[in-house]
Amino acid sequence: MNALIYHGPYDIRYTNASAPSPKPNQVLLRVHHAGICGSDLHEYTHGPSSMPRAGHPHPLTNATIPCATGHEFAGIVDSETSLLSATETPLPAGTKVVVDPRLYCSNCINCKAGYTNGCVNWGFHGISGCCGGFGQYVAVDARMCHVLPSDTDLSIAPLCEPLAVAWHAVKLCGVGSFKGRNVLILGGGPIGIALMFVLKVWGAWEEGSRVWVSEPSRRRSKQCEAFGATVLDPTAVDVGKVCIDGTEGRGAEFVFDAAGSEHGMKDGFRALAHRGTYVNLALWERPFTIPFSDFLTKDATVKGSMCYDDDDFAATVNAFVKGRTLMTNLRLHHY
Amino acid sequence: MNALIYHGPYDIRYTNASAPSPKPNQVLLRVHHAGICGSDLHEYTHGPSSMPRAGHPHPLTNATIPCATGHEFAGIVDSETSLLSATETPLPAGTKVVVDPRLYCSNCINCKAGYTNGCVNWGFHGISGCCGGFGQYVAVDARMCHVLPSDTDLSIAPLCEPLAVAWHAVKLCGVGSFKGRNVLILGGGPIGIALMFVLKVWGAWEEGSRVWVSEPSRRRSKQCEAFGATVLDPTAVDVGKVCIDGTEGRGAEFVFDAAGSEHGMKDGFRALAHRGTYVNLALWERPFTIPFSDFLTKDATVKGSMCYDDDDFAATVNAFVKGRTLMTNLRLHHY
Repeated sequence: MNALIYHGPYDIRYTNASAPSPKPNQVLLRVHHAGICGSDLHEYTHGPSSMPRAGHPHPLTNATIPCATGHEFAGIVDSETSLLSATETPLPAGTKVVVDPRLYCSNCINCKAGYTNGCVNWGFHGISGCCGGFGQYVAVDARMCHVLPSDTDLSIAPLCEPLAVAWHAVKLCGVGSFKGRNVLILGGGPIGIALMFVLKVWGAWEEGSRVWVSEPSRRRSKQCEAFGATVLDPTAVDVGKVCIDGTEGRGAEFVFDAAGSEHGMKDGFRALAHRGTYVNLALWERPFTIPFSDFLTKDATVKGSMCYDDDDFAATVNAFVKGRTLMTNLRLHHY
Repeated sequence: MNALIYHGPYDIRYTNASAPSPKPNQVLLRVHHAGICGSDLHEYTHGPSSMPRAGHPHPLTNATIPCATGHEFAGIVDSETSLLSATETPLPAGTKVVVDPRLYCSNCINCKAGYTNGCVNWGFHGISGCCGGFGQYVAVDARMCHVLPSDTDLSIAPLCEPLAVAWHAVKLCGVGSFKGRNVLILGGGPIGIALMFVLKVWGAWEEGSRVWVSEPSRRRSKQCEAFGATVLDPTAVDVGKVCIDGTEGRGAEFVFDAAGSEHGMKDGFRALAHRGTYVNLALWERPFTIPFSDFLTKDATVKGSMCYDDDDFAATVNAFVKGRTLMTNLRLHHY
């Protein structure tokens, strides 16, 4: 098969590779589309960081680089290998699926508690030394394949993965609904947009809810505005003041950080309501230093949001399947 | 009356001052005992910081320093001024009370929401330019006086104030009970000890609950051990590892930071369980920089805990009244 193989920084090779052989309970998936994540870009320019280097194999795959990249992918179950010996839910050949690309051990204390996103041995297809979505075929555990209706546009289905990242962050807020809630999103890139989609599913924009996005880029601003957000350019306006003034002094009850910048964080904590929640999804390259005065005097809650768990991915796929016209809109604006 | 009057750093004068005149709905309180808070020490050595300087009067008191210090105090309602025109609950002369020493405006968006600890004009007796507990008499709003039984030992009643600080932090955790929960307290000083008292009221030490205190000082360690905590010396052992090993890998579900040190925070985040909660009560003098990897991969929640609100103080006094033999123990160990 053809595959994009990661060898090291600025060294990804489009080559011919042997197709992976599915183990019991795995299917061989013919990849249809795959997405590029920010972490893929990071591995390309600054890696290998999460990728296992030679001599340091991943504990679950026992493998190292080089390997095919890509962890956001959807495809079709291949006819040759769809009949499995012990899988509980056989996937017929031709089934469209999107893949939860995580690897977890199921044995550590976090996995046993259902917190599979906190697996002490966590890994990913396309990262942890095993085949990813930028190969034509991927061998993947059948239980990690989420079945899609036959009319699903597989070119957008890989977006379930970043949407699940957003879903997890929204879920961690601990409120059943965002109806009537005021929300600020820092950063209008892919994760910021994913947050808007998920928040909409959770009731944002309803019953007086306000959603602001802080984003300096004109192109991204237009995408967020097309979605219905009020976009603020943090280089031109005082984001915190706008959010406070726009809520009669209350502020944003929820701030999602999908930017990872100190300036943005300062704005976010200024905008935050008393006893508000600040959820960080960004990978910070600089120290994660919280503005202490706002943090303390507001009784603020700050949450780290790491990836997603089984429930998040399933719920995201369910929402995607039910409302995929929205996803078509996303595609129009985003690509 | 005699009073300790704060004039500036290293300048507190024991002088004769005129007794305050109660306004409508205030009582004149004869102070029995008052406590010294860490923030009082900070004002003494590095102030004025929260104290209003000349030319910058406090918005609620319209006053500046010099003023009598002390915001942890209890006393007896004075006969001369106990009959008020419009108070809803007149306090007879001779009533023993402990005072919630906060000043708040009741008009800002946070006060109206019941978050009086987030009053945008917040102040304190003994700090914000109005009389504090280190004067023989204090004029204080009747509604801020919490009635104590006539047999209460007023020498320990001022401890309700730091106990309310701890109560608020424990309440913010959002769990109804600490039975069966594993807790690490960073710092075994007055607030660390107050946390132990409050956590005990909330069920800690019951149903397999473990409570560790990280504290290097021998004297403080003994006080905490006498209370029943397992004390760890962070200069001698790996606090994070001990907590993780002691919980079969799970870690501490709650970490309370009453130390404000970088070393302690690192230990605390290491010890923290997946989806655990780290509550900060400390006043940090250095940047509040969170260990990012533990924060993110553990889906951690970090909370700022600021002072206390009306409910916290009332609940604390209620617990104090019901269990004040415990407080006698505290006194024996602490002074």
